[in-house]
Amino acid sequence: MTFGHDATGLRSETVRRANLSAIVTELHLHGGLTRSELVARTGLTRGAIRGLIRELTAAELVAEQPSRQRGVPGRPSPVVLPRGDRAVVLALEIAVDSLAAAIVGLGGEVQRLVRTDRPRGHLEPDAIVDDLRRLARPLLAQVGADDLLIGAGMAVVGVVRSDDGLVHTAPNLGWTDVPLAGMVARALGVRAPVVVANEADLGGLAEHRRGAARGFDDVLYISGEVGVGGGIIAGGRPLAGASGYAGEVGHLPVNPAGTRCRCGSTGCWETEVGERAILARARANLRGGGRAMDRVLEDAAAGSPAAVDALRITGEWLGIGLAGLVNVLNPRLVVLGGLIGRIHPFVAGEVERAIATRTLSPARRDLRVVPAALGIDAPLLGAAEHAFEPLLADPATWVSPQDRALQLRSA
Amino acid sequence: MTFGHDATGLRSETVRRANLSAIVTELHLHGGLTRSELVARTGLTRGAIRGLIRELTAAELVAEQPSRQRGVPGRPSPVVLPRGDRAVVLALEIAVDSLAAAIVGLGGEVQRLVRTDRPRGHLEPDAIVDDLRRLARPLLAQVGADDLLIGAGMAVVGVVRSDDGLVHTAPNLGWTDVPLAGMVARALGVRAPVVVANEADLGGLAEHRRGAARGFDDVLYISGEVGVGGGIIAGGRPLAGASGYAGEVGHLPVNPAGTRCRCGSTGCWETEVGERAILARARANLRGGGRAMDRVLEDAAAGSPAAVDALRITGEWLGIGLAGLVNVLNPRLVVLGGLIGRIHPFVAGEVERAIATRTLSPARRDLRVVPAALGIDAPLLGAAEHAFEPLLADPATWVSPQDRALQLRSA
Repeated sequence: MTFGHDATGLRSETVRRANLSAIVTELHLHGGLTRSELVARTGLTRGAIRGLIRELTAAELVAEQPSRQRGVPGRPSPVVLPRGDRAVVLALEIAVDSLAAAIVGLGGEVQRLVRTDRPRGHLEPDAIVDDLRRLARPLLAQVGADDLLIGAGMAVVGVVRSDDGLVHTAPNLGWTDVPLAGMVARALGVRAPVVVANEADLGGLAEHRRGAARGFDDVLYISGEVGVGGGIIAGGRPLAGASGYAGEVGHLPVNPAGTRCRCGSTGCWETEVGERAILARARANLRGGGRAMDRVLEDAAAGSPAAVDALRITGEWLGIGLAGLVNVLNPRLVVLGGLIGRIHPFVAGEVERAIATRTLSPARRDLRVVPAALGIDAPLLGAAEHAFEPLLADPATWVSPQDRALQLRSA
Repeated sequence: MTFGHDATGLRSETVRRANLSAIVTELHLHGGLTRSELVARTGLTRGAIRGLIRELTAAELVAEQPSRQRGVPGRPSPVVLPRGDRAVVLALEIAVDSLAAAIVGLGGEVQRLVRTDRPRGHLEPDAIVDDLRRLARPLLAQVGADDLLIGAGMAVVGVVRSDDGLVHTAPNLGWTDVPLAGMVARALGVRAPVVVANEADLGGLAEHRRGAARGFDDVLYISGEVGVGGGIIAGGRPLAGASGYAGEVGHLPVNPAGTRCRCGSTGCWETEVGERAILARARANLRGGGRAMDRVLEDAAAGSPAAVDALRITGEWLGIGLAGLVNVLNPRLVVLGGLIGRIHPFVAGEVERAIATRTLSPARRDLRVVPAALGIDAPLLGAAEHAFEPLLADPATWVSPQDRALQLRSA
């Protein structure tokens, strides 16, 4: 294929693709926008926007509707909307206590979401993939043959290689080196690509795009259940690290004189602020899982000294690790999700004190610590965002039929 | 001012500026390149490159020379060179034990560099700025009236706000909230902008562009003298944090049962691996400074058990903090500079052991730990890179005379 050139010196096909990407990304993140708003947000000319919208409309990625704005004089400006009814992704999650699946449309609307309890403990990868297939099948059946299934995104409680979705380790599942992306792609029988990432990384991505961290460029998202994970947004972009393993904040050594961690090290942050540490301090059943934890939080709310004390000590360790991460990363916003978000109301004082005494004063000046907004579904929603990435980066593949055929063949 | 539009939908002036930036950045980072190499590296067309080189040549930012390539048949392709003789920056540094100044040309060549010892201890900001002015004056006198002084960059051992070069705290200097950028600009009497940043951040930038980390996208640079600092490169870009304070790895809490830190916290990494910790473990004079430290390293090299032991314990703590940072950031390369680089040969075993036992196995799979390449001058060279940023980002300002006049007026 040959491309034309234009006066700017860039191949015009390169420029067209970048412009389509800018428009689809804006619409996905912000929902409906008028052409004037698109001009302002993308820096493109009105004429260029007109042509690109025409292409995207023909591909059924966007649609124009009369504006519903009332009370503004003059002809109403039509609104360009992402077609979440036509372009969708499948999102999947393997959490500690549950499995989940959702269909999410372009623009971020969740069209259907199912979550089922999963017994804790180690299960064969094949068995979990089979459960996921059963969960996802009715959702996929709703996606019409003419609809665009952009891809499938998957969140998993484990350390995942970004290149190919290999799960290196997932202690909660007892997994080592499981090629999850390929297994799920085969089980679902979809031709769209399947991408897999760590649940905390995806939770951070979702909170950044759709939740508590929207509009912030430098964010630290911390979430915990059994272990503790983190998702880092730096300069507006997810910090992946060299191979996608960044954000393993649960394995920051905070107490070298402490207890042994599942990872083989000693005194990792999660040995002090993870579920097991809290249950042990509260003298609760260490094998009681989520229910035992619920009871500790209820007891603390009712003023039980043992539970309150257990959380207070946990809060001190939570503050120590957070302070270190604030010094290293200088985020504007810390978002607490999962178990860490649930204990935060009980330990906000301890966390505040640690930040006041253990961070460098300029780094804490404009810092805020807030609870996550998306709750338990944050990683699942992040998996959907992850699956939309190829479309946002290069919508041209879905706009031009011959390009699309290539895309499907290579998938 | 109005700009034309072209078929791509981007304002053509925006595109021209981006293209000039791409070319000047490539030449600055890689030195001389043929037009064909520029085509390959920038994705621009040959015709566009020709026009842009003409503009840059007229502005004396680049020059073309016949290639010296021998043994290749055919007409030699001319090489486009950055004109480091015409476009320069002034770099300055306030280190713990010294002050330094340099003139660095576009392309990175150091044309002149001076460094003088500085007595340790607290000095009034005015006095240090005056010393810097005396150091820089003869260097600035060499810059001709027709040369382009792009700006001045400055490295300082302190926590610096990126917006305006305010030094929030610099414990080695006894400073709090010193508006250093403005003071230096006034003292030097230059109209070019003065930018200030933390010395470890700039050391990391220099090692990434010109030193041991060249070509790596995910890098952790650690340097120490009295305190310990870090510079993080993530996804090819410096990680600045929300306000420029990121990288304060010396204040990662690694030993909550440890000793009090100058920052007010307890058990920060620098209390275990900084100069004072090493001198204390070796029972050396705590006020002996760099000379006492030299002696500890000489003693260790000679096999003195006290010195070897002091370094061994330091190495264990060095490994603990490094392991935590590897888990959080997943760098491909760790570069050790300053005092940390000097002790590394004595403690490489301890560091390796900590990485083997305290990092998640996938994160360490492709990890390398190497000494810094640029030695004591890394922060100074990073300050030069920092000062070149406005030129690399938008050379058009220096290409078009009216834009340049505006630039100077606003400086």
